[in-house]
Amino acid sequence: MKRLMFALVLGLHGLAAHAGTVRLEPIQPIEYPTDLDEGKVELGKKLFFDPRLSKSGWISCNSCHNLSMGGTDNLVSSIGHGWAQGPINAPTVLNASYNLAQFWDGRAADLKEQAAGPIANPIEMASTHELAVEVLSTIPGYLREFAEVYGEQPISIDLVTDAIAEFERTLVTPDSRFDQWLKGNDNALTQLEKDGYELFKLTGCIGCHNGPAVGGTALQKMGSFNRFETDNPAVGRQGVTGDRVDRMRFKVPVLRNIELTWPYFHDGSVRTLEEAVDTMVWVQLNRRFTEEGRAKIVAFLKSLTGKQPQITLPQLPPSGPDTPAPQPFD
Amino acid sequence: MKRLMFALVLGLHGLAAHAGTVRLEPIQPIEYPTDLDEGKVELGKKLFFDPRLSKSGWISCNSCHNLSMGGTDNLVSSIGHGWAQGPINAPTVLNASYNLAQFWDGRAADLKEQAAGPIANPIEMASTHELAVEVLSTIPGYLREFAEVYGEQPISIDLVTDAIAEFERTLVTPDSRFDQWLKGNDNALTQLEKDGYELFKLTGCIGCHNGPAVGGTALQKMGSFNRFETDNPAVGRQGVTGDRVDRMRFKVPVLRNIELTWPYFHDGSVRTLEEAVDTMVWVQLNRRFTEEGRAKIVAFLKSLTGKQPQITLPQLPPSGPDTPAPQPFD
Repeated sequence: MKRLMFALVLGLHGLAAHAGTVRLEPIQPIEYPTDLDEGKVELGKKLFFDPRLSKSGWISCNSCHNLSMGGTDNLVSSIGHGWAQGPINAPTVLNASYNLAQFWDGRAADLKEQAAGPIANPIEMASTHELAVEVLSTIPGYLREFAEVYGEQPISIDLVTDAIAEFERTLVTPDSRFDQWLKGNDNALTQLEKDGYELFKLTGCIGCHNGPAVGGTALQKMGSFNRFETDNPAVGRQGVTGDRVDRMRFKVPVLRNIELTWPYFHDGSVRTLEEAVDTMVWVQLNRRFTEEGRAKIVAFLKSLTGKQPQITLPQLPPSGPDTPAPQPFD
Repeated sequence: MKRLMFALVLGLHGLAAHAGTVRLEPIQPIEYPTDLDEGKVELGKKLFFDPRLSKSGWISCNSCHNLSMGGTDNLVSSIGHGWAQGPINAPTVLNASYNLAQFWDGRAADLKEQAAGPIANPIEMASTHELAVEVLSTIPGYLREFAEVYGEQPISIDLVTDAIAEFERTLVTPDSRFDQWLKGNDNALTQLEKDGYELFKLTGCIGCHNGPAVGGTALQKMGSFNRFETDNPAVGRQGVTGDRVDRMRFKVPVLRNIELTWPYFHDGSVRTLEEAVDTMVWVQLNRRFTEEGRAKIVAFLKSLTGKQPQITLPQLPPSGPDTPAPQPFD
């Protein structure tokens, strides 16, 4: 009988959190990692901001994953070496550690594997792994710092990406108002935002956008119900597997900080959250929101903006006499 | 007699500083400004890092005056909109408030006037002042912050550059070992560095490179004794005045943090401090250093590296629905 009463009380309170517990919801709070290697983080931060990893000496990870702008460039698609136009919208690095895989098509298993890509991509940073390693290996300050962090072994792309990935693990955005609510603060959200979250679940958005990052846990077909109209030729996962079934399957983007990471979708074709919500609910769920419903969803989405990483700009160690010079105009 | 003794003692100690005083030298310590408007500084910092001041939405002040790299881009000449090649080496913003005028040819009277230049330069940020103001005026967070700082008046290029200039006033690098020595700490410099400073004065370098920034106090002809060989077509001050006498007259660059701001000279043609010293003493003073002399000078120059500004990366306010979209590929 006591157990039944207890269950009823729980039921009456929905799954409201008690002190120190987190509501049982398909979205869970973002947590700052507790097992960081601080030496790797500091080194990785320098590398993240160092344009000498690019052929031109001008493009760093932060150029397109700008930590002043939600970890993106807010462009339809990125600008790369020689002002090349990128093929796809740059995803945010914020909370990317929660992704099951990296890149829109999930072709990199993790942050470390991802970090190696843009460095050697001819239309992004346009260097090579060999050149990047040579550059770093001729910079006395880096030689010292790599030795401190990794011991006496030659600098390698493996170590470079390991350090960058460890820094990227710090790029999480905890303490959004939504997370405060998840942790039991009923007043952290307005009624409109709470209604928006309920509608987000009822409509089915939650089926793909779930987990701590509100996305990133699966690849899904873009346009599962209705065709997603786009000029962008990207085919998604099919490009990795060659399997027709994977055509237009993309990693579900994280919705954390979504108000900061416009324009939306892999083709960057949509500029406002309102339009993005309309498009998604139509192409993925074959539904239309009323204006009121859309406003609720957008209000909820904006409650997902968390505390942005506080980054003290690193001071990069000066090049040495043997450091290969940047080649911006070759 | 007492006065004579005092003078002799002073003489024996050179002009060694006593507690709380600064040595009487033609170089004086860098001091952090005490009359800052903190509201303007914070706003100016955001603007300095905001690529939306450029047509592409990708280039900010910090792109070429990178505060992770001594306030420069460490490139021969800068990269601008559409990957345009700039005509001249980007001078550092560090300690630029000490310059008698801005740009290599001194065509801008001060930091505020300077800041307006690159925004509208077609091969730099490639925006217009009108567009930049329209962009900022449609960003709710900026509207709020400008109103807080400047009161109820429309955002204008005048206010934009005023805020950027105030932020740039904070970009000073006090507390170099040389400044510690200037302030009386005899042990702050090695004997080699002290010898280097003596040689710097004896040789005549100090004639142009003086004042707190060790430069920036005058325009001088590049190649006053011997011709400075360069492929760079810049004519210096003559481009401003039209006066043949001003041909190849450039602002004397600051030597503070010079080990961080390679490559050297207005044409960025020289990569190492050693070569830069050799060139300067030849073209400006018709002399040659011994290897030992050069090493002393270089050691002294490296003692001029000060404490770099500690910059917490700003979080930029999101664009509004009416903010003109960036046009990187038009």
